[in-house]
Amino acid sequence: MNPIEIIPIEGLPEIHPGDRIADLLAASGADLREGDVVVVTQKVVSKAEGRMEAVDPRDPAARAAIVERESVRVLRRRGDLVISETASGFVCANAGVDQSNVPDGYITLLPVDADRSARRIRDGLAHRPGVDVGVIVSDTFGRTWRNGVTDVAIGCAGIAAVVDLRGTTDSLGRTLEVTEVAVADELAAAAELVMGKSARIPAAVIRGVDRSWFRPSSVRAEIVRPPAGDLFR
Amino acid sequence: MNPIEIIPIEGLPEIHPGDRIADLLAASGADLREGDVVVVTQKVVSKAEGRMEAVDPRDPAARAAIVERESVRVLRRRGDLVISETASGFVCANAGVDQSNVPDGYITLLPVDADRSARRIRDGLAHRPGVDVGVIVSDTFGRTWRNGVTDVAIGCAGIAAVVDLRGTTDSLGRTLEVTEVAVADELAAAAELVMGKSARIPAAVIRGVDRSWFRPSSVRAEIVRPPAGDLFR
Repeated sequence: MNPIEIIPIEGLPEIHPGDRIADLLAASGADLREGDVVVVTQKVVSKAEGRMEAVDPRDPAARAAIVERESVRVLRRRGDLVISETASGFVCANAGVDQSNVPDGYITLLPVDADRSARRIRDGLAHRPGVDVGVIVSDTFGRTWRNGVTDVAIGCAGIAAVVDLRGTTDSLGRTLEVTEVAVADELAAAAELVMGKSARIPAAVIRGVDRSWFRPSSVRAEIVRPPAGDLFR
Repeated sequence: MNPIEIIPIEGLPEIHPGDRIADLLAASGADLREGDVVVVTQKVVSKAEGRMEAVDPRDPAARAAIVERESVRVLRRRGDLVISETASGFVCANAGVDQSNVPDGYITLLPVDADRSARRIRDGLAHRPGVDVGVIVSDTFGRTWRNGVTDVAIGCAGIAAVVDLRGTTDSLGRTLEVTEVAVADELAAAAELVMGKSARIPAAVIRGVDRSWFRPSSVRAEIVRPPAGDLFR
């Protein structure tokens, strides 16, 4: 295996509805190359796609109503916290409704289809800087049983969400038991290491990713676990 | 933020009980530097610590009995799969009992105290190659609601498990809501990207990690969520 490099993308402007992220990435001066993976956070994708909503910050009930509307199934409630399933099938806190790094009086919603968001960025980059890259849209989720949040993939394009190692052999030549690795989530987590929640770095480039992982893919198809048969729903 | 580099450590031999991992890392020729984070997989740590057990591969009941013994609380069962809590407080499949990359007729158990395992490696590296590094012991866990496994930290030393961004401000100068980032889990996930489940690469170096994250820490104290008040136990 080769080394992997994770490079923060600086110089992106504040994002506004209607902005084309691929164009802004190209204009940022980021050095994008064939075979890179570009990770972009949900926050800038949602802003560019106009997935913002005005909400009175002094009215928690208004925000709660948006969380309910964005939820198709509530798993747990405690105080202000709701753990729910979104229309895209993500299970997360407050249906992904978020007010950090958003102007006062606004919240962001998750992209309607973050795989499509990733495809749009990928297609835009293929067009303008003319590079063939994988794209991941990342967001920050909590986890069951473990404190702290990590970044995961909510959308991807041109890069595998899950790599299936079933049928391959381990170092002793035996068939492997554990098998399907959510590489898109690992790439999203890796990218977060150079972002910093408070710095204005909403994107990163990952260079040196296994070439066999580049293929058409979708977080929704490969990572989102259907409720039927889920042990925790 | 600076770029981060993830470098696979090749050239480690097959590990046997009693082996000192720090010495083997030093002998491998890996280029370890001040301020690196070294990620070592559970499998080699368990082997070095003698956390292996003989079990007849034709006797699933024998393996199941070990899983029960290693579990302090069973959350879910389906077929052969058990989701349970271990003595260290990890919730994972089959209490971490695993037979991949282990000689036929054996399984590995989780380290008794993976934070201590990480400290021992860190102390060994401080002694022999004389480098001050952070150390993470990683393992491969499934997740609720998402398909695919990712690597997470089960132990750490000299590097923060969780970085608390509460009280810091976002790019608009407002106080951040989401806050505690499980950087040890993100580092473990990043390291997995250069390991490959089937290659004999059980360790990686991560270079360029934020210097402020280096401090005494513990996965058990910072990441393991106590059962009391947990919404999913």
